[in-house]
Amino acid sequence: MNDTRQLNQPMGGNEMPRFGGPATMMRLPTQDSAAGLDVAFIGIPMDIGTSNRPGTRFGPRAIRDESRMLRPFNMATGAAPFESLQVADIGDVPINTFDLKKSVDIIARYYDEVLTHDVTPITLGGDHTLTLPILRAMAKKHGPVGLVHVDAHADINEHMFGEAIAHGTPFRRAVEEGLLDTQRVAQIGLRGTGYSPDEFDWGRERGFRVVPAEECWHKSLTPLMEEIRAKVGGGPVYLTFDIDSLDPAYAPGTGTVEIGGLTIPQVLEIIRGLRGLELVGADLVEVSPPFDANSQTTVVAANLAYEMLCVLPGVTYR
Amino acid sequence: MNDTRQLNQPMGGNEMPRFGGPATMMRLPTQDSAAGLDVAFIGIPMDIGTSNRPGTRFGPRAIRDESRMLRPFNMATGAAPFESLQVADIGDVPINTFDLKKSVDIIARYYDEVLTHDVTPITLGGDHTLTLPILRAMAKKHGPVGLVHVDAHADINEHMFGEAIAHGTPFRRAVEEGLLDTQRVAQIGLRGTGYSPDEFDWGRERGFRVVPAEECWHKSLTPLMEEIRAKVGGGPVYLTFDIDSLDPAYAPGTGTVEIGGLTIPQVLEIIRGLRGLELVGADLVEVSPPFDANSQTTVVAANLAYEMLCVLPGVTYR
Amino acid sequence: MNDTRQLNQPMGGNEMPRFGGPATMMRLPTQDSAAGLDVAFIGIPMDIGTSNRPGTRFGPRAIRDESRMLRPFNMATGAAPFESLQVADIGDVPINTFDLKKSVDIIARYYDEVLTHDVTPITLGGDHTLTLPILRAMAKKHGPVGLVHVDAHADINEHMFGEAIAHGTPFRRAVEEGLLDTQRVAQIGLRGTGYSPDEFDWGRERGFRVVPAEECWHKSLTPLMEEIRAKVGGGPVYLTFDIDSLDPAYAPGTGTVEIGGLTIPQVLEIIRGLRGLELVGADLVEVSPPFDANSQTTVVAANLAYEMLCVLPGVTYR
Amino acid sequence: MNDTRQLNQPMGGNEMPRFGGPATMMRLPTQDSAAGLDVAFIGIPMDIGTSNRPGTRFGPRAIRDESRMLRPFNMATGAAPFESLQVADIGDVPINTFDLKKSVDIIARYYDEVLTHDVTPITLGGDHTLTLPILRAMAKKHGPVGLVHVDAHADINEHMFGEAIAHGTPFRRAVEEGLLDTQRVAQIGLRGTGYSPDEFDWGRERGFRVVPAEECWHKSLTPLMEEIRAKVGGGPVYLTFDIDSLDPAYAPGTGTVEIGGLTIPQVLEIIRGLRGLELVGADLVEVSPPFDANSQTTVVAANLAYEMLCVLPGVTYR
Amino acid sequence: MNDTRQLNQPMGGNEMPRFGGPATMMRLPTQDSAAGLDVAFIGIPMDIGTSNRPGTRFGPRAIRDESRMLRPFNMATGAAPFESLQVADIGDVPINTFDLKKSVDIIARYYDEVLTHDVTPITLGGDHTLTLPILRAMAKKHGPVGLVHVDAHADINEHMFGEAIAHGTPFRRAVEEGLLDTQRVAQIGLRGTGYSPDEFDWGRERGFRVVPAEECWHKSLTPLMEEIRAKVGGGPVYLTFDIDSLDPAYAPGTGTVEIGGLTIPQVLEIIRGLRGLELVGADLVEVSPPFDANSQTTVVAANLAYEMLCVLPGVTYR
Amino acid sequence: MNDTRQLNQPMGGNEMPRFGGPATMMRLPTQDSAAGLDVAFIGIPMDIGTSNRPGTRFGPRAIRDESRMLRPFNMATGAAPFESLQVADIGDVPINTFDLKKSVDIIARYYDEVLTHDVTPITLGGDHTLTLPILRAMAKKHGPVGLVHVDAHADINEHMFGEAIAHGTPFRRAVEEGLLDTQRVAQIGLRGTGYSPDEFDWGRERGFRVVPAEECWHKSLTPLMEEIRAKVGGGPVYLTFDIDSLDPAYAPGTGTVEIGGLTIPQVLEIIRGLRGLELVGADLVEVSPPFDANSQTTVVAANLAYEMLCVLPGVTYR
Repeated sequence: MNDTRQLNQPMGGNEMPRFGGPATMMRLPTQDSAAGLDVAFIGIPMDIGTSNRPGTRFGPRAIRDESRMLRPFNMATGAAPFESLQVADIGDVPINTFDLKKSVDIIARYYDEVLTHDVTPITLGGDHTLTLPILRAMAKKHGPVGLVHVDAHADINEHMFGEAIAHGTPFRRAVEEGLLDTQRVAQIGLRGTGYSPDEFDWGRERGFRVVPAEECWHKSLTPLMEEIRAKVGGGPVYLTFDIDSLDPAYAPGTGTVEIGGLTIPQVLEIIRGLRGLELVGADLVEVSPPFDANSQTTVVAANLAYEMLCVLPGVTYR
Repeated sequence: MNDTRQLNQPMGGNEMPRFGGPATMMRLPTQDSAAGLDVAFIGIPMDIGTSNRPGTRFGPRAIRDESRMLRPFNMATGAAPFESLQVADIGDVPINTFDLKKSVDIIARYYDEVLTHDVTPITLGGDHTLTLPILRAMAKKHGPVGLVHVDAHADINEHMFGEAIAHGTPFRRAVEEGLLDTQRVAQIGLRGTGYSPDEFDWGRERGFRVVPAEECWHKSLTPLMEEIRAKVGGGPVYLTFDIDSLDPAYAPGTGTVEIGGLTIPQVLEIIRGLRGLELVGADLVEVSPPFDANSQTTVVAANLAYEMLCVLPGVTYR
Repeated sequence: MNDTRQLNQPMGGNEMPRFGGPATMMRLPTQDSAAGLDVAFIGIPMDIGTSNRPGTRFGPRAIRDESRMLRPFNMATGAAPFESLQVADIGDVPINTFDLKKSVDIIARYYDEVLTHDVTPITLGGDHTLTLPILRAMAKKHGPVGLVHVDAHADINEHMFGEAIAHGTPFRRAVEEGLLDTQRVAQIGLRGTGYSPDEFDWGRERGFRVVPAEECWHKSLTPLMEEIRAKVGGGPVYLTFDIDSLDPAYAPGTGTVEIGGLTIPQVLEIIRGLRGLELVGADLVEVSPPFDANSQTTVVAANLAYEMLCVLPGVTYR
Repeated sequence: MNDTRQLNQPMGGNEMPRFGGPATMMRLPTQDSAAGLDVAFIGIPMDIGTSNRPGTRFGPRAIRDESRMLRPFNMATGAAPFESLQVADIGDVPINTFDLKKSVDIIARYYDEVLTHDVTPITLGGDHTLTLPILRAMAKKHGPVGLVHVDAHADINEHMFGEAIAHGTPFRRAVEEGLLDTQRVAQIGLRGTGYSPDEFDWGRERGFRVVPAEECWHKSLTPLMEEIRAKVGGGPVYLTFDIDSLDPAYAPGTGTVEIGGLTIPQVLEIIRGLRGLELVGADLVEVSPPFDANSQTTVVAANLAYEMLCVLPGVTYR
Repeated sequence: MNDTRQLNQPMGGNEMPRFGGPATMMRLPTQDSAAGLDVAFIGIPMDIGTSNRPGTRFGPRAIRDESRMLRPFNMATGAAPFESLQVADIGDVPINTFDLKKSVDIIARYYDEVLTHDVTPITLGGDHTLTLPILRAMAKKHGPVGLVHVDAHADINEHMFGEAIAHGTPFRRAVEEGLLDTQRVAQIGLRGTGYSPDEFDWGRERGFRVVPAEECWHKSLTPLMEEIRAKVGGGPVYLTFDIDSLDPAYAPGTGTVEIGGLTIPQVLEIIRGLRGLELVGADLVEVSPPFDANSQTTVVAANLAYEMLCVLPGVTYR
Repeated sequence: MNDTRQLNQPMGGNEMPRFGGPATMMRLPTQDSAAGLDVAFIGIPMDIGTSNRPGTRFGPRAIRDESRMLRPFNMATGAAPFESLQVADIGDVPINTFDLKKSVDIIARYYDEVLTHDVTPITLGGDHTLTLPILRAMAKKHGPVGLVHVDAHADINEHMFGEAIAHGTPFRRAVEEGLLDTQRVAQIGLRGTGYSPDEFDWGRERGFRVVPAEECWHKSLTPLMEEIRAKVGGGPVYLTFDIDSLDPAYAPGTGTVEIGGLTIPQVLEIIRGLRGLELVGADLVEVSPPFDANSQTTVVAANLAYEMLCVLPGVTYR
């Protein structure tokens, strides 16, 4: 509030109808680099790491489009992020859509540059492969980070079709490369079919708190988040949110659908429950607009990205 | 039951397949005026008051179409409305789709005429602007009414794009015009983003009971409805139900979607919880068929309109 | 595990991308007859018994297609069905799509033949009419069976449009023909509109445990399933699962939609709660792909069919 | 024009917005019987005779809905049908959706009754099976009729799956039963795959003029229609129009799609080319709304049904 | 080519994948005003002037999104517009979505300002009402203009529902206000149903060349365009293109669909046939994304807007 | 006909309803290798070479599904391919969906193996990248081949985003590698936007016959095909058919849509016009089911693949 800077504001509905204006995140101004920002929304239009349905390449465009209804103030929590933080949409990472491995390197270099500006990136995916290069940049700057990983899948495969890099492997690679403080990692929402109990136990054996979806059914997750905050706190924390953590009733538009997932109140409790942590970045991945009739999933995603903004350090609350 | 009149009955599935017959509400007979009726279903095909997605102009047609499966008896509550009430579908209000302000006047005059017949109107919208002229007619007949307002939004904006009349302003106008008994008003399901806490507090300051969606999460609303009945009772009550009160998982087909909303069991508890009140009218608004793949939302709307019928005064229960 | 047979395995994602390979159930091998199998997946592509929306004729093809993501191991329950059971997809029953009554006879004869092989059939429908001829074959082999019937509707109509055979009549016919052990029958999830209380009471009067959807709202069904197991156990049990038992938020793609239904966690609790019973067959009916944007319902159906497999007698658990 | 009767008019757009008003054909008045009418629009909500995709049961409802834009005057031809003919929508035939053979009898009886009123029926289907019972009623009244049959398929199968009655057999049955004046029959638009040349030659051997789609490519059909008028004239003529005669680019929403079909200009030339014949009835069949994104096909169907009206004997031209 | 300015170029596919980058027209740079431009793409997100289906409010966003594939060079004609013209996307006109008449005034003022910069605007609609205020600005600057009007409808209604301003009236108003040089007006593609021959003859009586769709069937329009160029040339010309001029097979996503329209080759011939005229502005209206499955219509619209750019005075051809 | 082998036949509609049975190409039998076959249908489920919309990974599954209506005899041409050729569906190539370059090698090896069996492969794609490795295998067996390339794009890019391998480069690579007899190459249907005239001229300079779409408008292509046969004949010829050669009205479901394309009659004339050539293989690529509402494009693709079969050497004609 006392910020002497001219802070960017989302374009308001009384200035331009909601269905017009720039198709940027929350109709915020754009800039080419992250310089001068506290928070940057960044898109990674990529789906070549997906193993079932594609389409997440359109995630950034679609989430921005459907963010047009978002107003600046969070009625539930009192967060007023645009009163204290300088936020902009800095556009998309120019990935190489014909080569996944090269794309991973492009992303890592891009975030190295972004992080020179002391900005907190909120990334709109794109498939989950992208979290690996972001974590590489994060660890380069912050050392091993804590991680809150909300997902239907553990994504700790040794390989997929023989490949080390794919959307089912990022967190095994991250552990192997020392990017995570494994005692400060939580995975929430895991479920579905697999090949063996190892898929959930591998993390546990390394110190993760693994919360299967079944542990979440029929109740508020506010108590769980108290535990999670204690688990992952005490240092920089990264949030990675796979939209398929939600039950398909809430988020049908994704690539590797698993039934029996989290509800919207639960994921709002999860994100709101991160307030107070030293969040250094966040991503929202695996939104696939071609499988999203009524734009149901992209609306959810836009809202969750906004909720992530609301729990960053330094946000004013009213 | 002892009604000596020949009561209209919905056309049955053994008379005509469900997918045939007239596309009226519940395949009921139509008539041109409300004369002789206890309850009239009325459509208002309007969407020019909407601020994001349009399409509610097709709400009445689509809800009627998808009401074709509804049978006369309420298995859960025992209500048998067609055993004691004369009900018909009296068609649509001929709004002026090129001028919102004129349409508001057309609606007010239409309901003035309808209410000369001592009929209870159940209105199928159409955007939420339409509730203002209906409340004008209601207050002209009954004096200030109590209100149960189920919605994601408070709809008490001072103006939208400088306009006093739009789908986000009806309840501020209604208070200003003295149409509501403000001590007998409840708003349920509010949530989302806004501009300031005032959006929910404005009503509170005038005596409303405001129930944010977060207060409803993870539980039955039957206890809440006991409180609401006490709050709004003691006089004529109007029910206005915006389909966006529901979480988009249940009702994706609407214009200004907010995540984290009510569940179907909860809204059934809300409507069924109104039994015993002096209900003088009800509306169901903001169903937008072009954004409603699988007709999911229109089926919900048709059912909720039927449930409204079931809690009107004078319904036989078995 | 000690099975000396070469057991069929679902084609793995490291062998062939999930979006390729045979469009069979779980990408399992096919064979022409049930000989040598413990479990056979069978499709019945039929919708001429439906009373509202058609389309279930495409159910078997679509469920198989969307089963492509299923891996062999059940992460939640530890079931590893392919380690102890010989399972294959034996294709579709060649029904006569122009004559419902002849189709019923074709199905009965088909299952008579299947059951000569001591196989447990898991049937992918198709409309609910198909359960009657399957029960005829079941009763011929096992005598009257216990029944777990998960559905929005009781399906005990005396007739529909004067017809004894239709998707709303199978369980009245089954009782009349002595196919069911009526003291071992449970119906779960019933709701909606009807013609009289008889629709739920008819079964109760014959000994059924009838659980309306309202009894299930806002809670885990694990306690209920303890009661149900006690009720239906003590002999062979058949499971018939109508996808419309689920709330349309979870399963919009069906023909006779009723709001206020079960949740995915609840139906998983129901099916997982059948473990330990002497299950002799199961079906999953009323999936209508033409009304299933995003394939949301077919994905659910494929998962539930897999969960049915996991609770069959003889499955290895890890 | 000099008609002293009060002639029904389609509800105009200045009276009620196009998206409101009754969902009848062209928003015309309804009446229960055909008495007093020159022309009756009739729906037959049936799809149990279809062999591939279902959904034509919703044809009548959807065509009526999308007929809402139609104004009374034909700008291209000058036809003003409502200035000289009394036209109404008399609703749907109550077919038995569980029994195709009984439905055929219901339809025949229904049209026997309709034809007692000297009315020309324009039927909205429904699958092509329905033309057989209509022809039975036609022949009973008029003797064997001439036929203009526009379709992708000859529909002269000996049987389908052993059945004499199905949507691929009506014209063989009609010939066998003597309902057609086989020297006055034309089939236009035939194409696709089959089992042998007989499928097109069977009719030729009986005197039909058979025009494969390939004969129509890249040109106007006005010259052809001169030949057709000469061929089928000289007595009462019935028009049966299967929407799949059109190329799927124009009419994707149908059940048995064949590529390479007619264009919209061509089918308008066909229908307009029938002016002057003694048309005694017409039908438009095989519109399947569940496969009709954007309502593209139903809009076409509504327009073609109007064009049929425009070429009936007695229409005023301006 | 010898232009010494730094000319804006569409973002290339080798710089950023087609599915990323800014969602502007052709991924061009944006600027706030038209200063310094030769051509400005402008959006008008409006649909409150529509009489049947709404949704054109999303036209500008959707057309921009789907313009992402467009490369700078026209392979068919050799036009290289970005080699000689300075082009940018200057965003949307902030219309008042709750008041059509005020929106018309907002648009007129906006274009008055734009035209102070000697820029040629290409407008992405929005409903056809918007052409009236643009023509007001055009006539204020240029005097009465010639007009090429491609449309299914003449849009010369005296009023709609009593209103002078709506999407069916702009060209009657324009004639009345003296905005058009009526001897230099052509209307191409008219068809469908109406109320009387006057709808096409009104323009003819004032000097328009009116070309009904039927006159265009089955042939190239290149010869017609020679005539049209002679008719409308000799002064400044404005092009207004209603997407419903196309047959719905090519452009289903629009509000007032008429069958039997133009083909894509024909509309390309029309626009390419305008080369050499003194075009002072152009618009492309009535694209309704909610009725546009597969984005078929928006892709067409994006291409046609590019083709309009290619025929502006001053474009380099190779 | 005199073939003494037991020839595979597509499963007939009187044996199993069209919507049931195996989801193989034309419901043909499957086998694991190409041994003993004259013709093999092969799927390549790949989309990681696409530059705009993805989804072609689902092409093979969807085309097979929609091939269910195809009967064995070609009514237009008299071809009866199953009377003289042994045909089966041999399933999918197990590409590596995370690495395009490795996938290209997998495909080349797969076809090397297939071609050891003297079988003619008809490939269902998949994106156009796949034609390069097939041509490598073809040239290895046959030497440089003639090519009929039907497409909206020349696909002769030097590189895309710096990559030599992508869906826009296969034919430049093929020329460079000597896989084509460049004097026997024809490209038909090219159009749209590009970077320079070189995109069409590059091939011309090497001897290709390049036929832009504009050259095809408004006419039959039968005369053109006479020229093409002369051009490409005199040796083994490969046919590669990109579905985007069709106008999007006929084939909306593809990734890089260009307006103004070929019509269905024209592409049938093209394929039927290849009869008599020494065809050694064919592919049909770029069908993207997620962008294919109503399955319009996949139905076209299934039919075209069948038409390809009908013009192979050795087919019986009746």
